[in-house]
Amino acid sequence: MLKASICTIGDEILIGQIVDTNSAHIAAALEENGIAVRRMLSLSDNHDDIVGTLRGELELSDIVITTGGLGPTKDDITKPALSALSGSTGYKRDERQLAIVHRILRSRGLDILPVNLAQADVPDKAEVIPNELGTAPLMAFSFSGGKRLYAMPGVPHEALGAIPLILEDIRRHFPAAGHILHRSLMVYGIAESALSEKIAPWEDALAADHIHLAYLPNTLTGIRLRLSTSTGTQQEQEERIGRQIASLKEILGDLIYSEQDDCLEATVGRLLKAAGKTVSAAESCTGGEIAHLLTTIPGSSAYFLGSVTSYAISVKEQVLGVKAGTIAAHGVVSAEVAAEMAEGVRRLTGSDYAVSTTGLAGPGGDDANPEGTVWIGVSSARGTVTVKKQYRNDRKRNIERFAAAALNELRKEIERSL
Amino acid sequence: MLKASICTIGDEILIGQIVDTNSAHIAAALEENGIAVRRMLSLSDNHDDIVGTLRGELELSDIVITTGGLGPTKDDITKPALSALSGSTGYKRDERQLAIVHRILRSRGLDILPVNLAQADVPDKAEVIPNELGTAPLMAFSFSGGKRLYAMPGVPHEALGAIPLILEDIRRHFPAAGHILHRSLMVYGIAESALSEKIAPWEDALAADHIHLAYLPNTLTGIRLRLSTSTGTQQEQEERIGRQIASLKEILGDLIYSEQDDCLEATVGRLLKAAGKTVSAAESCTGGEIAHLLTTIPGSSAYFLGSVTSYAISVKEQVLGVKAGTIAAHGVVSAEVAAEMAEGVRRLTGSDYAVSTTGLAGPGGDDANPEGTVWIGVSSARGTVTVKKQYRNDRKRNIERFAAAALNELRKEIERSL
Repeated sequence: MLKASICTIGDEILIGQIVDTNSAHIAAALEENGIAVRRMLSLSDNHDDIVGTLRGELELSDIVITTGGLGPTKDDITKPALSALSGSTGYKRDERQLAIVHRILRSRGLDILPVNLAQADVPDKAEVIPNELGTAPLMAFSFSGGKRLYAMPGVPHEALGAIPLILEDIRRHFPAAGHILHRSLMVYGIAESALSEKIAPWEDALAADHIHLAYLPNTLTGIRLRLSTSTGTQQEQEERIGRQIASLKEILGDLIYSEQDDCLEATVGRLLKAAGKTVSAAESCTGGEIAHLLTTIPGSSAYFLGSVTSYAISVKEQVLGVKAGTIAAHGVVSAEVAAEMAEGVRRLTGSDYAVSTTGLAGPGGDDANPEGTVWIGVSSARGTVTVKKQYRNDRKRNIERFAAAALNELRKEIERSL
Repeated sequence: MLKASICTIGDEILIGQIVDTNSAHIAAALEENGIAVRRMLSLSDNHDDIVGTLRGELELSDIVITTGGLGPTKDDITKPALSALSGSTGYKRDERQLAIVHRILRSRGLDILPVNLAQADVPDKAEVIPNELGTAPLMAFSFSGGKRLYAMPGVPHEALGAIPLILEDIRRHFPAAGHILHRSLMVYGIAESALSEKIAPWEDALAADHIHLAYLPNTLTGIRLRLSTSTGTQQEQEERIGRQIASLKEILGDLIYSEQDDCLEATVGRLLKAAGKTVSAAESCTGGEIAHLLTTIPGSSAYFLGSVTSYAISVKEQVLGVKAGTIAAHGVVSAEVAAEMAEGVRRLTGSDYAVSTTGLAGPGGDDANPEGTVWIGVSSARGTVTVKKQYRNDRKRNIERFAAAALNELRKEIERSL
């Protein structure tokens, strides 16, 4: 198995000002391509330290990827360090990247200074991979033993864009990597341990099919079950994994919300768009998070009509039409109030579906409704359903979990009514 | 200056499943205490690799902090690795941590298994710092040259809780660290380069006062200006920094939104609470993010009444009372619609203040309103003000920036009317 090291370069990370998210994206992409990340490092903008550390990593790994330190200012010293490491004797200007630098600065209405032009200069031992997303080019260097070092910018969207380009180069230089097929199923509403028990017999049979299973849990999106195989032709891989997915779907039913690698709000959006239906939300304890999640999806205006965040009881009563008697009889955190909130916002906006939440994100709660309690309502032409959930997190994470659980109840109700 | 290394241990990070946020928190805390983080590393659950790497880091740094690998399962091998590294000859059970293990499992209604009890076992060379937040204890080890290694769990809220305990131990063992005073001012609504130009003469005079200035920019919270000094007695430090802050406030005026190290939504909440006033929101392009941010603050129900997310024109008209004629005459993305939205939600909820947004988060836009355009409205007893902003990000980041800008306009209007 090929081994890789990932090095981020820059003082902002070492003083804790920035959380390094690039390394996780790069690692996930390498892992999906059958390359084991041996270690990740973060280094300061110090020439000798960069050169020495990268030399050490090239001893240990087949592939070394660096991010950061390619900007135009004096404290960006990755380029001279890579020049020294690669034994380059000077710099060359890359015409393709130079054209990109001109285009980007022109589109921003900025003057082109010598320091900008120098962005297209690379050590003479570098192979340039043009970077359309920024002024600094991607660079590849070859070292003895067929090892390869890649340098990419640290700006997150540029680093994200660079990953497929670098993987393409890796596949060309390390053909042994072979083809790995991955397929993911998104599961929500079951704990990892319970899921593992439920699918144990199915999981035990995977080895005979040369399929590897990974559990990739995430608070907001549930558990991603990823099936992978590197054995056989691509067609055989598709057939074997397809067969196993079909039998897993029979075991898990509507615990599976997507066969694409996406989130609940994207799944809800896809279902609504396909059905030509609309949705609205009435939020108390989630405070706008459900509407926010739904509207992070591009094109959500096609199916999301709007929402009401009803923190105050007066807003619940006067805007959503929740009856004062219902609140008096059952309390604000109740199935009855959740139902009237969902029905109220559905009436108000004229949407086909409506989802609601009322609960206690904390801090604070009582015996009847401890912190982390939420009632979820979903209203549609089929009627209104309510569900109670209980979580044990802090305020922010309770809000996230409430919103994810509500989106999942909405998703199930849409599926049932299609 | 003391040097530190931070090592995270665990395969979840190396396959890119988890983003390491612990290291940034630890690094920020060390940096605030005058300790330079030399490097950060992420290692896999491999015994020899852990021992070898930590040994190397102890050569380079005075302080090494590890997170992760302290759980009760077989793949958690930090403890045996630290046993080998420290030359321990066995394990000892820590009674204080054992009591915590019992308490935590009891509170969760779980049976206590031998594997849980073993959580309180540590290598015999370890000094235990009890961890009230979880079952695994914090450990400290001494090495030659007065160097010190700390191990803390990888669970983020346990790691966060461990930081002050470890800093306390560091201050005891490395008294040379001395006292450093930090004071922060939060600035919003000016680019870093423009800010730097505006305060250049003031900044130039800081050196004579032995004050160091750091610019810590963040998309959501603006720029944190941090003043630090390690010279003189604590009282002298307070006086010198207090004097410089007073003159900086004269230069920057209402660009400064807080003298505490907090965010716009917390500042808005503090202002409203102190004045006994309430707020509501009418959101189009921010889709619920403003309400979500306001309600992440504990106790926000005291001043946040509610909000309407009006994605559909029908919701703008029928719920918020925006006039069809206004939309026809000026378009949805306009000062006039922003104003009527803010006025409408203020009327609907009866709040003292209301904030609104209408714009285009993207993808897509036109010549009149390119992607990234937002109109913000703020309504109060003083009347209604509107402001236009233009950003150049992707959808998610535009939404975040719109919401931050709206909270800042709201904050300024509250300050003006107090």
